[in-house]
Amino acid sequence: MPESIPILKNPHLDAMENDYLYHININVVNSRSATDIERRFGDVKFVCLGGTKNRMFALAKYLRHILQLDNGEELVDISESGNRYAVYKVGPVLCCSHGVGMSTMSVLLHELLKLVRYAKCQDPVFIRLGTSGGVGVTPGTVVISKDGYNGYLRNEHEVAILGKRVVRPANFDEKLANDLLRHAKSHCGYDVIMGNTMAAECFYEGQGRLDGASCDYSEADKMAFLQQLYEKGVRNIEMEATMFSSLTKHVGVRAADVCVTLLNRLHGDQVNLTKEQKEDFEQRPFSVVGEYIKSSLCGN
Amino acid sequence: MPESIPILKNPHLDAMENDYLYHININVVNSRSATDIERRFGDVKFVCLGGTKNRMFALAKYLRHILQLDNGEELVDISESGNRYAVYKVGPVLCCSHGVGMSTMSVLLHELLKLVRYAKCQDPVFIRLGTSGGVGVTPGTVVISKDGYNGYLRNEHEVAILGKRVVRPANFDEKLANDLLRHAKSHCGYDVIMGNTMAAECFYEGQGRLDGASCDYSEADKMAFLQQLYEKGVRNIEMEATMFSSLTKHVGVRAADVCVTLLNRLHGDQVNLTKEQKEDFEQRPFSVVGEYIKSSLCGN
Repeated sequence: MPESIPILKNPHLDAMENDYLYHININVVNSRSATDIERRFGDVKFVCLGGTKNRMFALAKYLRHILQLDNGEELVDISESGNRYAVYKVGPVLCCSHGVGMSTMSVLLHELLKLVRYAKCQDPVFIRLGTSGGVGVTPGTVVISKDGYNGYLRNEHEVAILGKRVVRPANFDEKLANDLLRHAKSHCGYDVIMGNTMAAECFYEGQGRLDGASCDYSEADKMAFLQQLYEKGVRNIEMEATMFSSLTKHVGVRAADVCVTLLNRLHGDQVNLTKEQKEDFEQRPFSVVGEYIKSSLCGN
Repeated sequence: MPESIPILKNPHLDAMENDYLYHININVVNSRSATDIERRFGDVKFVCLGGTKNRMFALAKYLRHILQLDNGEELVDISESGNRYAVYKVGPVLCCSHGVGMSTMSVLLHELLKLVRYAKCQDPVFIRLGTSGGVGVTPGTVVISKDGYNGYLRNEHEVAILGKRVVRPANFDEKLANDLLRHAKSHCGYDVIMGNTMAAECFYEGQGRLDGASCDYSEADKMAFLQQLYEKGVRNIEMEATMFSSLTKHVGVRAADVCVTLLNRLHGDQVNLTKEQKEDFEQRPFSVVGEYIKSSLCGN
């Protein structure tokens, strides 16, 4: 099925003999013929993304265990020499750290999308596993994102291209989100829901927090804003969903966003969890996504 | 001079008994009286920021050497347990990694601004030391930023606050930039210039590159855009300047941006440097800023 290989949306790529994926430090040579890149990454079916290197290392270890791929070897960070992002490969799954927010994630995403194109991966799926602030849900609830909302409460993503404002729709793949939810409901002992996700450019003022270095609004203003979000079906706030959904949709690659909520923003701004609670909560997206991947690879 | 302690722009901070700076994992208890935070950080005069942990570790080592503060002890990453940002303290200087782009840097910046406020630091100066793409300058040139330009070629920064577009001016401290330039000219054997800096939300489409996962413009369109930038006095492109200059200016803290250019975008999109060249270039902002700090601390 050659049509299931991502072709992306850039005709210039066909003309490039070499493409140095600078930030993940992977050099793609002679991308038009069978290459080393196909041999190294052609089997990739899932690209998992998360904020920190530590969490993606833990995810790689977890997936290696549940997919029974533990050969006893050390997990190697393929992109360590790039000094910015960590990339681990566990069989057909990549686990990649993207840092905090859209700008850092977009750099990685462009390069990983090119990687799966050059490697001729068959219908790869990109899934972000993150942490977030909940809106009207109990801390620990896992939210599978339906649509992304930007800071202006619009279901879209704005990006400045050559000085002009370009607006792209910010929707995740509906079938993938539903499949993830159905699997989760069958095996998870905690709340997993479908909801919209607001992506903010800023953790403090951008999310209506009262505890940033700058704030010129009141508690009442904040609560009115969070209420508006709730009415639009937003159940969590993080810093990536609109860029992630809009770029993957634009280039024709399926994607999902699965985030646990660390607090309920209707009750406060600060994260107050014990180390044990935080570890328990952070494990939840691993379990939701891990079981789905296991089931997909086994053809269930 | 109590007026030289940063007061920032958030009246809510006065009412907080505790403030947990979540992403750098520093807990500020009872921030209104003399505290542990003042004892630990009250001597800080300079907050240096850069993209990667490795680079900030190297900067901390370099500063420790030239400021003659090397006591033989290991450099400790104060925020290691936060898993996101690295923070090293070398006498009166903090060296902090912010990741790639405005969203990740803004999280750190809000928390560091609150830190210098709680610690009652006297007139602290924030300086970013980065890498960038040059516009019409020889690779290796160091650009000290005058004004920040956003992706719409405007000297401002947009941020969504409670659903509304808030626009703030994006200017760096003029005297600080001039002082840095004058010092650099007196001791650097390479080009150091003052110029405007464009900050993009995206490394690929946001900077007019032809080699992203998505691109629907031509080489001629790109060159016309870069020419427009050049005519506005923009000499380099990175991903932080507008957020950094606008937030620091807004809360009344002096800041500067000192970036080396790794390529000349008028000649191409990809970074093609040897490891040695890259190390040499990355050292240049260290030297420009390090000599300035040394001179400031010695009262020259």
